[in-house]
Amino acid sequence: MISINLDHASCSPLGPRVWQAMKPFLEGSAGNPSSLYYQGRVAKKAVERARAQVAEFLGAQDKEIIFTSSGTEANNLALKGLAFAQKSLGKHLVVAATEHHSILNPARALTTLGFEITVLPVDRFGHVRLQELEEALRPDTLLVSIAYANNEIGTVQPLAELIKLTHQKDVLFHTDAVAAVGQIPIDVGDLGVDLLSLAGNALYGPQGTGALFVRQGVRLAPLLHGGIQERGLRSGTENVAGLVGLGVAASLATAEMESRAKWLRQLRDRVIEGIYNRIPYVSLTGHPDQRLPGHASFTVSYVEGESMLVSLDLEGIAAASGSSCTARDLKISHVLTAIGVDHAEAQGSLVFTLGIDNTDDDIDRLLIELPPIVERLRQMSPLYLRVRQQKGEPVSPDPEPSAVETPGAE
Amino acid sequence: MISINLDHASCSPLGPRVWQAMKPFLEGSAGNPSSLYYQGRVAKKAVERARAQVAEFLGAQDKEIIFTSSGTEANNLALKGLAFAQKSLGKHLVVAATEHHSILNPARALTTLGFEITVLPVDRFGHVRLQELEEALRPDTLLVSIAYANNEIGTVQPLAELIKLTHQKDVLFHTDAVAAVGQIPIDVGDLGVDLLSLAGNALYGPQGTGALFVRQGVRLAPLLHGGIQERGLRSGTENVAGLVGLGVAASLATAEMESRAKWLRQLRDRVIEGIYNRIPYVSLTGHPDQRLPGHASFTVSYVEGESMLVSLDLEGIAAASGSSCTARDLKISHVLTAIGVDHAEAQGSLVFTLGIDNTDDDIDRLLIELPPIVERLRQMSPLYLRVRQQKGEPVSPDPEPSAVETPGAE
Repeated sequence: MISINLDHASCSPLGPRVWQAMKPFLEGSAGNPSSLYYQGRVAKKAVERARAQVAEFLGAQDKEIIFTSSGTEANNLALKGLAFAQKSLGKHLVVAATEHHSILNPARALTTLGFEITVLPVDRFGHVRLQELEEALRPDTLLVSIAYANNEIGTVQPLAELIKLTHQKDVLFHTDAVAAVGQIPIDVGDLGVDLLSLAGNALYGPQGTGALFVRQGVRLAPLLHGGIQERGLRSGTENVAGLVGLGVAASLATAEMESRAKWLRQLRDRVIEGIYNRIPYVSLTGHPDQRLPGHASFTVSYVEGESMLVSLDLEGIAAASGSSCTARDLKISHVLTAIGVDHAEAQGSLVFTLGIDNTDDDIDRLLIELPPIVERLRQMSPLYLRVRQQKGEPVSPDPEPSAVETPGAE
Repeated sequence: MISINLDHASCSPLGPRVWQAMKPFLEGSAGNPSSLYYQGRVAKKAVERARAQVAEFLGAQDKEIIFTSSGTEANNLALKGLAFAQKSLGKHLVVAATEHHSILNPARALTTLGFEITVLPVDRFGHVRLQELEEALRPDTLLVSIAYANNEIGTVQPLAELIKLTHQKDVLFHTDAVAAVGQIPIDVGDLGVDLLSLAGNALYGPQGTGALFVRQGVRLAPLLHGGIQERGLRSGTENVAGLVGLGVAASLATAEMESRAKWLRQLRDRVIEGIYNRIPYVSLTGHPDQRLPGHASFTVSYVEGESMLVSLDLEGIAAASGSSCTARDLKISHVLTAIGVDHAEAQGSLVFTLGIDNTDDDIDRLLIELPPIVERLRQMSPLYLRVRQQKGEPVSPDPEPSAVETPGAE
C-alpha cells in the first residue's frame, strides 16, 4: 500500500540533500565543537556554518541564532528565558488563545512564579484584533507572543502590524514560527520581531533540532545551565549532525521558498475545492486567503475526527485532527474553541498539512477515499440521518460499493 | 595521518550497529510518536522500545525513563525539576565541589530563586567524605547530587554508601552518571538512587540524546512545557532516530559491559604505566584504583595543558585538559582546585579518556609522541631548567631528533 503523508505539520521526511549532508557526521565521529583539536574544529565549523545558514534564512546575524533541540524548547526559552532575565522590568506577558501548547503551558507555568498572563481572544478566522492587543498592553508588559501561523487552522497573522503596535508601547515581541517557516518568506528585519522560534523538521530537517532567533541586545536567561555552548544561553554538547541537517534544510528553504509555496498552494486549493465539491456539510476552518500555502483544515459535520483518521489510515493516508502534537490527548482543540466553533462541530476536525513531497496523485487518492469514508461514518449518526430526512434527501445511499470501485471503472 | 581519539569523554564515535539501527528513521520519514496513524505508531513503538532498552540497561522500569536532548538537560531537569516541584518541602540542595558545570550552574541558578546550596569539599582523590555529607544534610534538604564518576579525574565515588546515608536522613539522591555509564555496571535498584542522568554519546550513541531515570513516586516539574510527550515531563516532538540510537547503544552496553571494561582497563593501565616510565615530574590525578576503566589523567609539571594538546593534535592525537566540555573556556579546572592541586600544577592537566575503538597501536603512538612533546615544551620553561640544574641533570637534552624518528629506526 502506498503511504501518503498529508500530516507534514506532525512529521516531514528528511530532505535527500539534508540527509546526505548529515551522513558524514553520523557514520564517523562528529567531534565535539568545544574541543580544540582537529575533530573539534571540524565540528565547530560545521555548527557555525549551520548557524550562518539559519541566520541567512531569517535575514538575521549569525550571533542572533541560538540552537535548541526543538521548537518547543525554543518557545520555552523565549518565554521563560525572557521572563527570568527581565523580571525586574515587569511581570506581565500577553499570548493569543490560539497559541501552541509549548507557548500556553510555559505561560501557565510562569503564573505559578508570580507572572501574570493575558490571553488574547481571536476573531472567527483566528486573527488577533489590533485593538484588543492594544488594550492588553500594560506598562509592566515584558513580552507579547503570537504565532506567525496557526498549525491547526492555517491562519497567518498580520504579524508586522501586531509587532508595530507592540513596539509603540515599548514591549518586546516573540513569534512561534514553527508552522510558518518554509512556507512564508521570513525576514526578521522587515518584520521587526525580537524573538522567533523554528523547528528543523518543519523545513524537512531532522527531528530534535530547533532554533531561537534572539535580536541582538535582547537579554535572556538560559533554561539549560552548564557549559558555554550557544554563548551560555543553551548548554549541552551540540547535536552536530542534527544541526548540520537543520542548516542545510534552512539553506534549501531559502533557495526554494517561492517554488515550494507555489506547489503547495495549488495542491492545497485542489484539496479545498475537491472536498467542498464532494462532501456536503463541510466548513473550512481558519482564514480563506490569509492561510499557509500547504494548509487545508475543515470541520466535517456529523463525524468524529478520530474515526476519519482511522479510516484514512486504513487506506494509507496520514492526516490530523485538532493539534497534531497532542493527538494522543483527544480533547477538543483549544484553537477551534477560540475561533468559536461549537463543541459538536469541533469533534469533526480534519487537518491536512501538505509537503513538497506530495503529488497530484496523492490529492486524487484523498479525494477518492475521503467522501465514502465520511458518508459511511455519517450513516452511523442519528443526527445526520434526521437532518437528511428533514431535507427530503435519501437516508441510506450506501456508499460502500463506490468506496471500493477503482476510479473510472463503470 | 591516522587520527587517534583519546578524548572519548568529549566525543565518541557512533557504534556501527547503532548507526544501522538509526538509518531507517533518517532515510525515510521517522513519523511522529504522537500521531495515531501507521507511521506514528511505528515511531511510538520505536521510542518505547528504546525506553525499554535504556530501562533494562539501568535495571529500571520503562516508565522511570525520561528522554532528554543531552546529559546536561537531564542534569538540569533533575535539579530544577525537583526543586520546583518540591519547594514546599524545603529549599536546600547539596552538591559536590567536583560536579560538572551542568550541575553546578543549575544549582547556582537556583540560589537566585531562593534555594540554598551546600557545596561539599572532596578529599585529594575526589571522594566525598561521609561525615561531611552527613553534616551537610538538614531537615529542609531536598536533594543531594553527586556524580557517579568524575569526567576530569576519573574517580568513582562510593555511591551506595553516600546514598544509604542520604536516605537515612530522608533526602533524595541524584547522580550524574554521564562519565560512568558504559564503563561501570549500573543497577538503580542495587544503588538505591532516586534520579540518574546519562548521555547517549557516552554509550557510543548519538549526540543530542540523553535520559533521566526518575524513580517511581519522585515528583518533578517539567523544564520544557508543551504537549504530552514523556508523560508531560519533557515536551517536544521526539528525536525518533536519535532515541532509537540511544536505545540500541544502551542495549549493546548492557551486553558488552564486562568485555568493554576489561579492554579499557588494560589500555588505561598501559597509558598510566607508560607515561610514568617515560615522563618525569608527572602525577596521576584522581584515585589510583577507584577510577573509571578508560580514564587516565595527569598533571604534567612545567608544561601547559593547552600546549600539549596542540602538539598532540599536530600528531593526530586528540586529548583533553581540564573539563572537556569547556575546553574553549580555558580556566583552571574547578575539579583540580577541589582536590587541592595548586594553580601551577593544574595548568599542566592532561586527560585521556579511552574508548572501545582504541587499539594497542593507539597507545603505542601516544607513548612515542608524548614524551618528546613534553620535553620540548619544558625546554621553554625557565622553572624546569632551574629544577634540573639544581638536581645536577643536563639542561638541554634536545629531544627534537627523537621526536621525528620512526620507532625502531636506529
